Amino acid sequence: MLKYYHAEPLANSLKSMVPLKEKGLSYESVYVDLHKFEQHSDWFVAINPEGQVPVLDHDGTIVTHTTVINEYLEDVFPDAQPDSGPLRPRDAAGAARMRYWNKFVDEHVMNHVSMHGWHRLVGVIARNIDEGTFEDLLSHIPLPDQRKKWATARSGFSEADLANASEKIDYALAKVERQLGETAWLAGDTYTLADINFYAHCGAMVERMFPEKEVAARYPRLVDWRERVTARPAVAEALKSEDRTQPGLRTWSGDR
Amino acid sequence: MLKYYHAEPLANSLKSMVPLKEKGLSYESVYVDLHKFEQHSDWFVAINPEGQVPVLDHDGTIVTHTTVINEYLEDVFPDAQPDSGPLRPRDAAGAARMRYWNKFVDEHVMNHVSMHGWHRLVGVIARNIDEGTFEDLLSHIPLPDQRKKWATARSGFSEADLANASEKIDYALAKVERQLGETAWLAGDTYTLADINFYAHCGAMVERMFPEKEVAARYPRLVDWRERVTARPAVAEALKSEDRTQPGLRTWSGDR
Repeated sequence: MLKYYHAEPLANSLKSMVPLKEKGLSYESVYVDLHKFEQHSDWFVAINPEGQVPVLDHDGTIVTHTTVINEYLEDVFPDAQPDSGPLRPRDAAGAARMRYWNKFVDEHVMNHVSMHGWHRLVGVIARNIDEGTFEDLLSHIPLPDQRKKWATARSGFSEADLANASEKIDYALAKVERQLGETAWLAGDTYTLADINFYAHCGAMVERMFPEKEVAARYPRLVDWRERVTARPAVAEALKSEDRTQPGLRTWSGDR
Repeated sequence: MLKYYHAEPLANSLKSMVPLKEKGLSYESVYVDLHKFEQHSDWFVAINPEGQVPVLDHDGTIVTHTTVINEYLEDVFPDAQPDSGPLRPRDAAGAARMRYWNKFVDEHVMNHVSMHGWHRLVGVIARNIDEGTFEDLLSHIPLPDQRKKWATARSGFSEADLANASEKIDYALAKVERQLGETAWLAGDTYTLADINFYAHCGAMVERMFPEKEVAARYPRLVDWRERVTARPAVAEALKSEDRTQPGLRTWSGDR
């Protein structure tokens, strides 16, 4: 029995939802409403003491962190795979290439895109909360780094930090574009968890979030790759899942 | 045929050397002299375009990044293991716990300890180089982040950055101490890649590097755990490998 606790279908919540669907695994979906700070509520922190979505509950085994969840699904359900092949290559060299890219996205992409997303989305939400309520909210966030991020979102990220993050995104886009000149997918000739990772954290929304980067003109292979990912039925289905973000705040999901 | 390119037995270079020895794999050791900036030289960048040690060459397949190398060794040589059991648990839940800790060390420990190490060691080396030579050196560093780190090491990391890194290390020490109150090793009841990771990046030298943290008094389980890791023959053997760091600069390796 699989249960998946998640929020809107983007970033981390999308990243582990896509493999569940690609592998055709049936699971119970539990929507956690970040707009109501449910991820910091007692019932949720009892499941994940770090107070973060998503979480996979597999017959009582709790797995957190999307890269870990996605490897776990490969370990437990190695034969459940899309027609395009396994999401984690079965040869060791292919798996290593996949993990190389996963590490790159986890350590050098995710946080930088996330900062811009938080700046635009979470910052607005945080500033709409009166100070007393906000302090109370902070006191319920288990991870110190996460508390700091919320506080910074309210006061505003610095221009220097935002510019640095934007530079890192440029670096990532160029790196991906180069790779796609050599192989059809990030880790080689087949679609893997690495593609899902970069798509969920950057590829899906980078063009909408950063029109000034002229993604279509400068990174045509990336756009073609993104379209190939978006066209996958499992991805399309995941993207349709519950989204309670106010339309005016959807800089991540694209509806302005 | 395995070939391992590495520098001194600490941090990343130690982290993948220990599994090679724990698994009893014979390999050719190639020492890369960071004091001569060999990692940025043409011959080395031809092997690893990112210009970083360590690198594993397995019959021509090049694998970089220690967490990726260590998983690769498990994929290729699953049956080579120490008497204590496999370094990557064979059950999916155990492997997930191991990966959870690997991610924590890779993303929330390594860079913070590294900054203090660079501040004390690389900063001294960098300031002993005249400006023209230093600029030339920078121009040969392939990764922009790494170029920035060298430049900052020379000018000096800010007190605020060093203090922030120190705080993150405190958080990690407390987290590990808590875990060791529940399980004998980081990922459960057996010694795994997670222990090797935390040992190589923090556990082995944290007490020597940060006497003000009073590690022995405040984190007794961590000290006990460290001694158990240090006592392993494979670890002891790895620690004896080539070390050309000037004794006066060995804040990492401990000889002052």
